[in-house]
Amino acid sequence: MTMNTDIAIYMTELGRAAREASRAVASSSTAARNQALLSMRDALDGARAELAQANAADMARGRDNQLAPALLDRLELTPARIDAMLEGLTQVVALPDPVGSITDMNTMPSGIAVGRMRVPLGVIGIIYESRPNVTVEAASLCLKAGNASILRGGSEALASNQAIASCVTQGLSAAGLPQAAIQVVATADRAAVGELIAMPEFVDVIVPRGGKGLIERISRDARVPVIKHLDGVCHVYIDEGADPDMAYAVALNSKTQRYGTCNTMETLLVAQAEAATVLPRLAQAYSDAGVELRGCENTCALLPGALAATEEDWSAEYLAPILAIRIVSGLDQAIDHIARYSSQHTDSIVTRDHPRAMRFLREVDSASVMINASTRFADGFEYGLGAEIGISTDKLHARGPVGLEGLTSQKFVVLGEGQIRT
Amino acid sequence: MTMNTDIAIYMTELGRAAREASRAVASSSTAARNQALLSMRDALDGARAELAQANAADMARGRDNQLAPALLDRLELTPARIDAMLEGLTQVVALPDPVGSITDMNTMPSGIAVGRMRVPLGVIGIIYESRPNVTVEAASLCLKAGNASILRGGSEALASNQAIASCVTQGLSAAGLPQAAIQVVATADRAAVGELIAMPEFVDVIVPRGGKGLIERISRDARVPVIKHLDGVCHVYIDEGADPDMAYAVALNSKTQRYGTCNTMETLLVAQAEAATVLPRLAQAYSDAGVELRGCENTCALLPGALAATEEDWSAEYLAPILAIRIVSGLDQAIDHIARYSSQHTDSIVTRDHPRAMRFLREVDSASVMINASTRFADGFEYGLGAEIGISTDKLHARGPVGLEGLTSQKFVVLGEGQIRT
Repeated sequence: MTMNTDIAIYMTELGRAAREASRAVASSSTAARNQALLSMRDALDGARAELAQANAADMARGRDNQLAPALLDRLELTPARIDAMLEGLTQVVALPDPVGSITDMNTMPSGIAVGRMRVPLGVIGIIYESRPNVTVEAASLCLKAGNASILRGGSEALASNQAIASCVTQGLSAAGLPQAAIQVVATADRAAVGELIAMPEFVDVIVPRGGKGLIERISRDARVPVIKHLDGVCHVYIDEGADPDMAYAVALNSKTQRYGTCNTMETLLVAQAEAATVLPRLAQAYSDAGVELRGCENTCALLPGALAATEEDWSAEYLAPILAIRIVSGLDQAIDHIARYSSQHTDSIVTRDHPRAMRFLREVDSASVMINASTRFADGFEYGLGAEIGISTDKLHARGPVGLEGLTSQKFVVLGEGQIRT
Repeated sequence: MTMNTDIAIYMTELGRAAREASRAVASSSTAARNQALLSMRDALDGARAELAQANAADMARGRDNQLAPALLDRLELTPARIDAMLEGLTQVVALPDPVGSITDMNTMPSGIAVGRMRVPLGVIGIIYESRPNVTVEAASLCLKAGNASILRGGSEALASNQAIASCVTQGLSAAGLPQAAIQVVATADRAAVGELIAMPEFVDVIVPRGGKGLIERISRDARVPVIKHLDGVCHVYIDEGADPDMAYAVALNSKTQRYGTCNTMETLLVAQAEAATVLPRLAQAYSDAGVELRGCENTCALLPGALAATEEDWSAEYLAPILAIRIVSGLDQAIDHIARYSSQHTDSIVTRDHPRAMRFLREVDSASVMINASTRFADGFEYGLGAEIGISTDKLHARGPVGLEGLTSQKFVVLGEGQIRT
């Protein structure tokens, strides 16, 4: 399949089959979907040799193609990563089934009872890069939430993903679910992505997982809604009167617990009144951790080791041991700074003042807004969602960490006894 | 303003002002927003002469341009319609403020408490056709839900909408809210629509209200999410063993209570076992009401007055006194027919059988699924939403009738006491 028309035909076939299968998955029992997940786990456990062989082929090809070491690392399926994949399936089985719950049922003046039933979205397209374990993770969450899925992994992981797909198919069959409930695209041709995001008749939503470039490209070209996750330019604001020890702990943890994650703090805002108290001690700790500091003029005056920040620093997502620091007059200026530069991902205030805490909570327009907690908590597992397909920086449908509920929708259900409208 | 660059500059100004105003609206008190709505009502009440004059100018121009009588009717602002506009404002004031409520607050193993706070979407663009009263209706709902809005009405209603806009602005000012919280586009140039739907940096969501052509065009070209409402190809299925009187009443009301509405039944499905009992009586009633019947082969055999339905009839949204009728073997075939032809708007079953009722409820994938009730109930007011900005046939974000809640989003809020991630 090298010609685009062949790819279009192939993807249309996958789409039609997924749409067809989605009806069977949506009306399948929780028990059947859990059985499929457990059978997948067993199939993967029994196919460790095949998985290793396929992955070795991908790795060899990757080395030949001079993939970056970081990409090669993410591509590798070690026995420990296979264990984690199996454990992930067990965890998804243990999650409550979101489908079918009816809430907010109320009787109306006309006598009809109106409520909302949680239902699958239908067909979900997942587009991701090198890590083959995403195949199992994403497919299992889509299936648990009653959806069919079409997965398109990185071309460098094609053999690994096909080996995983074979186990997924066995699991579906063992539970009597259609094989098209989870389909892994079997071509490395990039045209497949273009087709997948342009079939609104077959695909209800696209979840891209990968770098900002991939997500921006997909969002721009998609003719299907996209649950997207762009940058995390996260802030901690240390308020006037904040507990200095708490401010120190939260600001240090938000930056240094991990550098490459989207919920890592990238800019620290400090109220003028606390700057002299908290910044020198924090600067020492950042310096010990090897974090480069880039400060506003007042910060640089206070911290001789800090470089002068430029305008670009305030909107930078470093994903690295670099931190921008700005001293602000107080809450108003902090909120204004966040409104201007934040990517609306996660922002936190450290404060002892209740009215200011509540203003920050209400007025900061980000997916996660925190009081006295590390930004690193912005995560589906830490939020008790049980799983995470991604973190949405959109406002519609799903905002913040997206778990099973984000892979469902709600329809209205009306129970009557023959009521008619007059 | 006739050149597209001028329009682009003008719309960018509106967008930037709306984005700026949206922060003030989002953090305004419920009392201030209600005060603005009441002041708008008073301003409109005091401007009846100006409204009549502006509307007369639109009507005269419409007659000169030979607008269709139906369009002219919708364009007219009679005293009764102005009364209804004022009454609508009073009702929106009485609705509970959706903004700021925090739900699902739970303490996690880490000690942080995680909940969800309902927040405005930000800036909402409304694109609509001739009826000038939509200006007040849509603007008031957006404002009540804490959003700024940009409204683009039909060019034929430009003078009426500008007269209304002046009252809206007075209301905002009286309550100390920024005038850019509600902006009515002051040009008839169609390029304004193209700009409005392509400013993701300033507009968070577009709600088009109008015919299918308008909505399809906007959905295709928008670079902003669209809450869209396409066709209503609604079904009633009369199940085996259904109460014949209830079946008669629901099927008659679903078709004949109003013909031009999206929740009107367009296809009636009848279980084979009930066809001879219910169809002749229904056919008589439809015939008395002047409804043309187009049936499947079995229907035509039973009802000599019915025309033979073609394949196109099964997916037709007549919006007229025409009804397609198909006799099916039972529930499975009814669900299959609906899966194939329904526009996923509203579908209803008339039944006495509980397991089949529950299967219909679960397996029919429409925005509203009903048991023993007229499809005509699919409506924000009948569902107790208190208001309706539209009915969504999308699955993401809002599905079915969209009230104030659909104009909001939820963010995560985290309350800690200095917790850090380990």
